[in-house]
Amino acid sequence: MKKHNFNSGPSILPQEVLQQAAEAILNFNGIGLSILEIGHRTSWFVDVIEEAKSLVKELMQLNDGYEVLFLHGGATTQFMQVPMNLLDDSSTAAYCDNGIWGSKAIKEAGLFGQVNIVASSKDKGYTYIPKDFIVPATNSYLHITTNNTVEGTQWHSFPQTEVPIVADMSSDIFSREMDFNRFALIYAGAQKNMGAAGVNLMVIRKDVLGKVQRKIPAIMDYRNHIEAGSLLNTPPVFAIYVALLTLRWIKKEGGLKEMERRANEKSNLLYSTIDSLPLFKCPIAKEDRSKMNAVFFIEDETLQNRFLDECKAHGMIGVKGYRTMGGIRVSMYNALPLESVQAFCNLATAFNNANQ
Amino acid sequence: MKKHNFNSGPSILPQEVLQQAAEAILNFNGIGLSILEIGHRTSWFVDVIEEAKSLVKELMQLNDGYEVLFLHGGATTQFMQVPMNLLDDSSTAAYCDNGIWGSKAIKEAGLFGQVNIVASSKDKGYTYIPKDFIVPATNSYLHITTNNTVEGTQWHSFPQTEVPIVADMSSDIFSREMDFNRFALIYAGAQKNMGAAGVNLMVIRKDVLGKVQRKIPAIMDYRNHIEAGSLLNTPPVFAIYVALLTLRWIKKEGGLKEMERRANEKSNLLYSTIDSLPLFKCPIAKEDRSKMNAVFFIEDETLQNRFLDECKAHGMIGVKGYRTMGGIRVSMYNALPLESVQAFCNLATAFNNANQ
Repeated sequence: MKKHNFNSGPSILPQEVLQQAAEAILNFNGIGLSILEIGHRTSWFVDVIEEAKSLVKELMQLNDGYEVLFLHGGATTQFMQVPMNLLDDSSTAAYCDNGIWGSKAIKEAGLFGQVNIVASSKDKGYTYIPKDFIVPATNSYLHITTNNTVEGTQWHSFPQTEVPIVADMSSDIFSREMDFNRFALIYAGAQKNMGAAGVNLMVIRKDVLGKVQRKIPAIMDYRNHIEAGSLLNTPPVFAIYVALLTLRWIKKEGGLKEMERRANEKSNLLYSTIDSLPLFKCPIAKEDRSKMNAVFFIEDETLQNRFLDECKAHGMIGVKGYRTMGGIRVSMYNALPLESVQAFCNLATAFNNANQ
Repeated sequence: MKKHNFNSGPSILPQEVLQQAAEAILNFNGIGLSILEIGHRTSWFVDVIEEAKSLVKELMQLNDGYEVLFLHGGATTQFMQVPMNLLDDSSTAAYCDNGIWGSKAIKEAGLFGQVNIVASSKDKGYTYIPKDFIVPATNSYLHITTNNTVEGTQWHSFPQTEVPIVADMSSDIFSREMDFNRFALIYAGAQKNMGAAGVNLMVIRKDVLGKVQRKIPAIMDYRNHIEAGSLLNTPPVFAIYVALLTLRWIKKEGGLKEMERRANEKSNLLYSTIDSLPLFKCPIAKEDRSKMNAVFFIEDETLQNRFLDECKAHGMIGVKGYRTMGGIRVSMYNALPLESVQAFCNLATAFNNANQ
């Protein structure tokens, strides 16, 4: 039976990326060695990381003020590493509290300086994106999570502010066109739209660095990684290679414009179907709904569990909501084919009609 | 032409591990999904990490006081994370300065507390392992690097001390039998004897934790990872899976006893050959030589470069010394077959005889 992979991350990757990754494990580029066995300072791997960096710059149309790094760890590491590098003990950073991951970032930032929560959607269970808030010009930066994987919300426009914007784009990176040069720092765990778990993409506008007084541990200091060309220590070689393969695939398929078209097509189908079925409820404000993770539920829990069982029986993986949230979640990352969303919508419609 | 992979890390892995890893990328355990696409909280992956932990405990014969973790990052991350968790601002930790990696660890520890360098071999270019030094009982821990990948030395016996011993075992983990319960904390980047780059093995005796006053960032606090069963955030799934495959291979081949027998056989052959050839000089004290990384040189640099070219022509990869050291380095990790060492020794002998 064909599997439909709606995982929230680690999640579905393009079949050709998996094929190429498997080949590279046996024989990388025909050199007679595995990608897992080559030194990270060989020209073989330097070519990999340089091409990956250059594809990131090209896809995002970044200007020359930016550096691209591939670092160990996931986004959770950045919750700490960002304030360690950008926030002085006596300074204040602005944070938006609009989801579970953003609130974790807030907690970590508090260890390094003052946190000013300039906007929150906690009052309504994080079901919308706060708008029209003010960021004091004295704040060192503004932190937002562009897509909330758990709650199913997404920023579709960004705050107008002179303060440098730091964005956790883990779950919607490379899914849409936008002016990335508006951001001072972007970070993203790779395991959604960009590859396998085990590496963080960092996009850093160099002028925001070097402004804090504290002594930063060598491995945590972005400047050291920039100076070393992302090869300060042994990097997560294979995860970077899978990111390269995925970046090549995105470019070949038509870049961010095409990824956005697909995301629109899939999410429009999903939300319009759910909204048309009385059994299913989506609590998220329509204008703030995520095109990556649709979060909704069936009020009757017994019925919801039966639906989740039916999904499983139809080879649909990962449709159960986040462990602390419950409900249903359908993740529609770049590599998810439209036919998987169609299959889900067909099942939801049939289930609705049989159980109304 | 057959390749002989003498890389210092990332380095050679067993062929069957590579084969199994490639299969899992296409279809993990026959479930119809890639190992790169499955959620880290599924029973599929929980089984992987639990088996890997349990194999570590079994191979090391650890008692119940220990926890095993697989964390993001490489050993360099631990240079910072160890003192962050174990060393208070006002306390002192003992460090041995016997190589480039240990000296980096010393630098990072200095950011968190006082460092007492209790032993150093810097006076003779790190060509030996310091012995008979005293560790004050007031020091929070003693840090050593059990094998010096760059300099080619290895600790063959360990200091007698009541102070908890912290050991960086990145480059000789799982290569020999010893009483691992003598150590309070062991860390090792996986990319030498344990798999692919991108994950750190941590073995922690729980009673050393919780003794520092500082607030530790959530992702850096070992206690959080222990509480979350090494699933605090999305772990480096594939790197952990490759570690599991490698651990299974070690067990199947005969465990640490057999790994040690092979390391003895290979390193005895290598060193006895080099010592017998007037052209080659090994500067390392005989009793401290590493069984993982043999470091030596040819005095005449032109001749040495010719020899390195010949190695390349014979499919021998990674025999050039560390970039800041020069010379020749032959790494002989667990997966390196004896025949590769034989091939190297034959070439070295022929080169010696032709150029004396």
